[in-house]
Amino acid sequence: MAQGAKIRMAVSTVIFAMRPNKDDVPCLWTPFVPRTREPDLNKWALPGGWLPVDEELETAAARTLAETTGLHPSYVEQLYTFGQVDRSPTARVISVVYWALVRADEVAAAIPGDNVQWFPADHLPELAFDHNDIVEYALERLRTKVEYADIAHSFLGEKFTISQLRSVHEAVLGHKLDAANFRRSVATIPELIDTGEVLTGTPHRPPKLFRYKNLKQAYYDLNH
Amino acid sequence: MAQGAKIRMAVSTVIFAMRPNKDDVPCLWTPFVPRTREPDLNKWALPGGWLPVDEELETAAARTLAETTGLHPSYVEQLYTFGQVDRSPTARVISVVYWALVRADEVAAAIPGDNVQWFPADHLPELAFDHNDIVEYALERLRTKVEYADIAHSFLGEKFTISQLRSVHEAVLGHKLDAANFRRSVATIPELIDTGEVLTGTPHRPPKLFRYKNLKQAYYDLNH
Repeated sequence: MAQGAKIRMAVSTVIFAMRPNKDDVPCLWTPFVPRTREPDLNKWALPGGWLPVDEELETAAARTLAETTGLHPSYVEQLYTFGQVDRSPTARVISVVYWALVRADEVAAAIPGDNVQWFPADHLPELAFDHNDIVEYALERLRTKVEYADIAHSFLGEKFTISQLRSVHEAVLGHKLDAANFRRSVATIPELIDTGEVLTGTPHRPPKLFRYKNLKQAYYDLNH
Repeated sequence: MAQGAKIRMAVSTVIFAMRPNKDDVPCLWTPFVPRTREPDLNKWALPGGWLPVDEELETAAARTLAETTGLHPSYVEQLYTFGQVDRSPTARVISVVYWALVRADEVAAAIPGDNVQWFPADHLPELAFDHNDIVEYALERLRTKVEYADIAHSFLGEKFTISQLRSVHEAVLGHKLDAANFRRSVATIPELIDTGEVLTGTPHRPPKLFRYKNLKQAYYDLNH
């Protein structure tokens, strides 16, 4: 056996964006593209592709993501490497999976390829290979390992209302939270700062805008 | 170009154990084995090897670790995948790196291969390839991402004294902590429970033994 060879290397990317579902509840959405060849022809798969021998892993992930979805997130972070012997029926394929959170306006500004389709992350079709497991893993990581300061910033930008922040928590957790309780609990977070500004363009009493202190540190944590 | 091929897959493992350095200060140690061929002949490298096409990643990591160090940790966790195009001078090599924390008695009971040598993690020689960067990454993850409940359990077992717990924190942080301040700060941790037992075999007043509540949850977090 050629040492370490006979194994094919691929990259894939899990993208999460927050947008309303058909009941107008903000939830997490993820883009997929249909497989154009066997195995798993026509099944939905994560954006990705084979790794060229001379391309960096994260460059390949960002490139294949841009080619399919039109998205150019400011960074993609390595999520996990999936390499089970039987995950593809025709070859040993090891996929280094990246992920990124994107804002709704980034999705709106992207010019996607022909075939991309977004699905709610908690109502996925049967995906190609082990891609359902991969999205599940990413969701679990999002819920348990990533700071909400990072998540809120990625989905909402620098400034947000408490109501928008609650929507982020609800989208990630997958269930509603009590508005008054949420307001009370975030009031105790010392990193959450009143900017002194309010959201414009809303009728009646405009809601206050908040931001997270030490976001540079938060960014660092998400990247390392 | 054969799609996704021409790339060689390897696994490596970073092991951390806690034991005293020459000044009798507990610190983190990591085992290495000398390279037996070019490139980087004779340089110290992390335990590891090529990935056979039919072997699971974590099985290969555990097997190569056992062959070199004699260690059989109860699990190895995936740390990160290192795949920079120029990390090896002779081929594109992608290394899926695993890690584990082991207790001093596990190290003492292991029957190592001939060439393994342990080095203090903060005083490493120049290692092969990017292995210095890999150990640095593992140290950073240990310091910032892993709960001390998990670290303490991995290094000390289920029950430990406050002094032993402080040694773990000092070894991970790489500097001394004030004993009285440490005792005060851990007294506020609700998950830390007095077992009602004391450490036997010590002269004078035997110190109390503590344990972490919800260790099953802690284990889960470290594994996922």
